[in-house]
Order: sequence, then structure tokens, then C-alpha cells
Amino acid sequence: MNRVSEFLLHRRVQFYEVDSAGIVHFSWFFRYMEEAEHAMWRTAGLSIAMAGSDIGFPRIATSFDYHRPLRFEDEFDVRIQIATFKTKTIQYSCIVSKGAERIATGALTIACVRKGPQQTMSAIAIPDEIVSRFEVAAGASV
Amino acid sequence: MNRVSEFLLHRRVQFYEVDSAGIVHFSWFFRYMEEAEHAMWRTAGLSIAMAGSDIGFPRIATSFDYHRPLRFEDEFDVRIQIATFKTKTIQYSCIVSKGAERIATGALTIACVRKGPQQTMSAIAIPDEIVSRFEVAAGASV
Amino acid sequence: MNRVSEFLLHRRVQFYEVDSAGIVHFSWFFRYMEEAEHAMWRTAGLSIAMAGSDIGFPRIATSFDYHRPLRFEDEFDVRIQIATFKTKTIQYSCIVSKGAERIATGALTIACVRKGPQQTMSAIAIPDEIVSRFEVAAGASV
Amino acid sequence: MNRVSEFLLHRRVQFYEVDSAGIVHFSWFFRYMEEAEHAMWRTAGLSIAMAGSDIGFPRIATSFDYHRPLRFEDEFDVRIQIATFKTKTIQYSCIVSKGAERIATGALTIACVRKGPQQTMSAIAIPDEIVSRFEVAAGASV
Repeated sequence: MNRVSEFLLHRRVQFYEVDSAGIVHFSWFFRYMEEAEHAMWRTAGLSIAMAGSDIGFPRIATSFDYHRPLRFEDEFDVRIQIATFKTKTIQYSCIVSKGAERIATGALTIACVRKGPQQTMSAIAIPDEIVSRFEVAAGASV
Repeated sequence: MNRVSEFLLHRRVQFYEVDSAGIVHFSWFFRYMEEAEHAMWRTAGLSIAMAGSDIGFPRIATSFDYHRPLRFEDEFDVRIQIATFKTKTIQYSCIVSKGAERIATGALTIACVRKGPQQTMSAIAIPDEIVSRFEVAAGASV
Repeated sequence: MNRVSEFLLHRRVQFYEVDSAGIVHFSWFFRYMEEAEHAMWRTAGLSIAMAGSDIGFPRIATSFDYHRPLRFEDEFDVRIQIATFKTKTIQYSCIVSKGAERIATGALTIACVRKGPQQTMSAIAIPDEIVSRFEVAAGASV
Repeated sequence: MNRVSEFLLHRRVQFYEVDSAGIVHFSWFFRYMEEAEHAMWRTAGLSIAMAGSDIGFPRIATSFDYHRPLRFEDEFDVRIQIATFKTKTIQYSCIVSKGAERIATGALTIACVRKGPQQTMSAIAIPDEIVSRFEVAAGASV
């Protein structure tokens, strides 16, 4: 199986994602980016949140720059790429586009944690069986 | 401590709750009703979702009738009342209003379950320490 | 062009739709139903919210009964059907299922309105060019 | 009337904001920050989205760093400050905290636009009547 380094999600804007200015509310782009991330993990044969697992991947930093708006029923693409892959963290970069038009540019850093008793979380090294499925995308940057 | 039978939540419409028609998206009323429900449970000295508890209260039926729209920054009230309280289920009725104006009328039925292994849930009698905190609201109906 | 009476949406549960009980939050089913409704309108060659139009379709009543939970990454179907089609309103019925399993049963009534000055909305007859695209689904009931 | 430079919003975590890991989903922090922004505008005697106005304030960049999680029913504070105020843009910085604990640190840049025909938006200078209500917060940085 080839290592996975990126994913291209094709998506349509839903009515409940659009605000009263008639454009997608800026908070939705973080959900679009996460949808693409989770689809990339599925392509790698993984789930980012396995039922019963004590390992999790909380988000530790994220950002978006908005270039143009998306509107109701627009079709668009979310390209997520692995920009860095470290022992305990992964950084993604993300481009949202509509046809040839650049809509928004995002970034997301996640950490690997083990959940302990009393809701504690400790940073741990990403398990080998996960590391082995991914690689950094050629040309990705954050 | 008096038994609790209703709760009045005062709330303002947030920007991300308003859709492109300039009115609160209909899905939000179910969240407003749930906010009022959880505030009522806190008033009764309870949390509807205690960390670590194996007891839960999934929703089994709900509805809303919409009479007038809410708009950005409107202030409004959500009155929730206990309409029936049975061994394993609770039914609430809910009225959303803006000043003297009736905005929407809702209903919600929840069941008490015990969570078992492999994500199973079995209906159980609502525990006595919860039953003892609540009573049916005078005049409530569903 | 054939008249449209129903639509089947295939969908996967996204992470942000799942609550801390590990199941899809009940408010999301109303958005799933609406996604299917809007996809049905697109299949009929229409948009339920045309940019610049003074005609709108506010929701006037809706409900869901929940039979079984949906969980993260579950694939599921949303079947929406036109149950009644009157001069000024449309009633849909909706079944959410996962494979052969019935998950939830919903209903939705919408009205046709013309938006006037000062945010007024008046009920009007559904325009002929919309009426001509739809028909009641055989066997649908609410 | 004094110029406004910051706002402190006190808030409680709602059930629908918490994901299946038991912590507030990262996308919600952007909505918390925006709630505080709009409350700050109301304190300044303004609405960020006046009905019928052709002036709007789309978001052009935003970010959050997450330090610790928020959980169901946690009470927390969102402090937003004006960090820079330019002719056409405003930059805010934001700190989310729970008691003495720093939860997350955010930033948001908005632009002033005039909406034209065919859904166009052109950057314009922020109107004087808005400029006159605000000032940069002492010590704010982005």
C-alpha cells in the first residue's frame, strides 16, 4: 500500500453553512479542512477516532486566510497535504478552491495524545502503524 | 430543595445562527430548547451528562412549529416545562417568544439509558436521585 | 422532464456532527433532511434559494423520531419524499437508514412566501414553474 | 461616550459544542471570538450587520492556538481586544480562559466592504461613525 500524503475532497456548499451575508461563515472552513483530513486517514486505512481507543489527535493550532467567498450550492475542492510529520505532531496545509479560483488557504497542526484517567491527556509519539501509512507531500509548505 | 418543573432561558441570536434568508435557521431551535433543558437540570443540582457516568439521556422524539422568525441580535426567551415524567422517559414542552410575540412551539422526549459494552444502550428506570429533583409543570401539555 | 417526487441522499457522518455521547447530535438530522430536500430541488432543475429572488420557503413545522444512533464515519441514507403538495405549502416525509436499519423518521412542512420591504413575508401560491417540476410520491405519508 | 477597545464575554460550554472526545470542537472557538466581537460592537452602540445596510465586514484571516481543552458546562471567558485599527481593516486579538487557566489564543482580521450588484464586494474605508467609536487596546498585540 502506498503512503498517503494528500487528499482532494470535492464538496458542495450546504444551506446551513451560509450566513446572512450570503457567504459561507468563516468557521465552516475549519470543518471542511477536517473533513478532508479524516477522508485522507480513511484512504490510508485508518480512522482518526477509533471507538474505544485511548489515543486521540487534538488540534493544537489552526488558521485560515480568506481570499474569495463561497455561496450556496457552490461546488468546491478542499486539498489537504501533509506539510510536516514529526514524532508527536502532524502539520497540514490546505487550499480551498472553486474551479481555478483560490478561495482560502489554511493550516492545521495536530498532536498525538494518550487519554488517561480523570480526563488527562499526555503527548506521546505517533504509533508506528500510523506513521507507516503517511508521508510528507512533495512541495507542501506551511 | 424545591422540585424543578420549568426553566426560562433568556438568550440573544448569534450571527452564526442566522441563515442567508436573514432568519435563525430552523435547526437552531432544537439547540435552544436543549440549552434550556440543561440549564433546568443545573438548577435542579444535576448535570445531564456527568463525566464518567454510564447513564445517558438520548433524545427519542422532537418537533417544532415555527410562527414568526428570529433575526440577528434579537433577544428572546425559551421556556421549557416538564409535561410528563414517566418511569423511563421525560417529555418537555417548549415555547420560544420575543417579548409578547410567540415565535415557536416545541416538544422533546428523552429516555434514560445505561451504556453497556460495544456501544449498546438499554432503557432503564430514571434513577431516584434524579426523579426526586423534578416534577411536572402545572398546566404543561404536549 | 419527469416530475420529481423523492430523493435519496447518501452521506457519511462527519466528526463535528457527533456529540460527547459518541452519537450524532439530534439537531443534525434536520440538516440532513434539508440537504436531501435541496438536492431534490436541484434534481428538479431548481434552487430553493435563488440569489436575488424575492421568493422564499421558510420552514413552518418539523419533527423527528429517533430509533437508533448514528456514529462517526457511519454511512447512511436520507430518503425524502413529497407527501403533500398544496397551493402554498409542501409537506415532506423522510427516512434515515443505515443499510437495512431504520435510524430515524422525519417530517417537514415548508411554505412559499414573498419577501416585502421591512423584512415582511407574505404567504403566496407556489409559482407554476415550481409546481410543474414536482409531484407527490406514491405511498408517501406524514 | 468612551471609545471601546475590548470586551470580556462570560460564557458556558453548551452540549452541542462538545465533540466525541469530550472537548469543545476546535471550530467553536472562532464562533466564541465572533460572539465577543459582536458584543463589543453593541457596547459601542453599533451592530456589525445592520439590516438593509450595504456595508459589511467579511473576515479575511483568523487563527487559534489551543492550550487546554474546554468541557461540557465549563464556564469560561473570552477577552477580545482591538490590536490594530487601519483605514480598511481591523485586527483583534483574543484570549479564552477558564479562571486563571489559559485555554486558547486567537486572532482575527476583518475588512470593510461595500456590497455592489451581482454579489460584488469592494474594500472601502471604514466609515467615520464607526471609527469614532473604537480605539486600539493598550497592550494588545497580534
